[in-house]
Amino acid sequence: MRILGLDPGTVRMGFGVIQEEGEELKLLSCGVLTAARSDPLPDRLYALYSQILELVSYWQPNALAVEEPFVAKNVRSAMAVGQAEAVALIAAAHFGVPAFTYSPRQVKQSVADYGGGSKEQVQEMVRVHLGLSYLPEPIDATDALAVAICHSHHLQEQRLIMVNDQIESSL
Amino acid sequence: MRILGLDPGTVRMGFGVIQEEGEELKLLSCGVLTAARSDPLPDRLYALYSQILELVSYWQPNALAVEEPFVAKNVRSAMAVGQAEAVALIAAAHFGVPAFTYSPRQVKQSVADYGGGSKEQVQEMVRVHLGLSYLPEPIDATDALAVAICHSHHLQEQRLIMVNDQIESSL
Repeated sequence: MRILGLDPGTVRMGFGVIQEEGEELKLLSCGVLTAARSDPLPDRLYALYSQILELVSYWQPNALAVEEPFVAKNVRSAMAVGQAEAVALIAAAHFGVPAFTYSPRQVKQSVADYGGGSKEQVQEMVRVHLGLSYLPEPIDATDALAVAICHSHHLQEQRLIMVNDQIESSL
Repeated sequence: MRILGLDPGTVRMGFGVIQEEGEELKLLSCGVLTAARSDPLPDRLYALYSQILELVSYWQPNALAVEEPFVAKNVRSAMAVGQAEAVALIAAAHFGVPAFTYSPRQVKQSVADYGGGSKEQVQEMVRVHLGLSYLPEPIDATDALAVAICHSHHLQEQRLIMVNDQIESSL
């Protein structure tokens, strides 16, 4: 199971590719997709869209995990979040790869065991989960790796539930 | 000059194609793109995206005009609006067609001469602007035609300003 995590934005979009190997998670790649801030919005969205298509095409992930950024502030920023999210979701659907969205709270809870972790705590936990001796670079990709790990944890829970159901039904 | 107007939604998206012929506007096509409400969001966005690509590919418009729906209500609906808008903007950028967004107020002001027109007034004015003896069908495409007409009016104003500038500079 290979997961592409995305931290959407309309100018910068963090990404992280992880692979489940037995009980371990392995970092395959991470980085930041960018669009020129001076470009019109349609061109920026399309530039990011094209780069996600390339990522999916190259890494062939089984699933996309997308962080749905927290937007309590205002309607304008919520629209931008919707736009950035749509870019990721359309790219996933283009290849028929299922996409899953998680709130920042769900991601932090899954990675750092509670919902209110600081950025530094999330970075450290991402490092530990991926078995790295260094913090993953670029640091902007941390949230994308965190949402990918979060999706992997959800899958593990589901598998555990399925196994328990099978054990119960065989008793 | 051919304009594709879009009234974005994440399940239904009205469209209208108009053509400037001298001083007149001609209706070429209008309708509603749909996605299955029961489908997951990524599939719906991609279905609408693919249909816009087909429309642009077939009609070869010089510009896309997109109505930016009014969203004062809440952050959740603003995100959906952003998603629907992104679908239209990415499709435009895919073909390098410039896209322009207009608020409902701008559209009504342009089509019905004031910002507060009712739906029926907008329908009637769209009919008049396009020189039709009947209301355009389906009625769901009215807003898409209205935003296309709005963009045409903006272009006419810009041409007028350019002509006036030329006259002034030649005096």
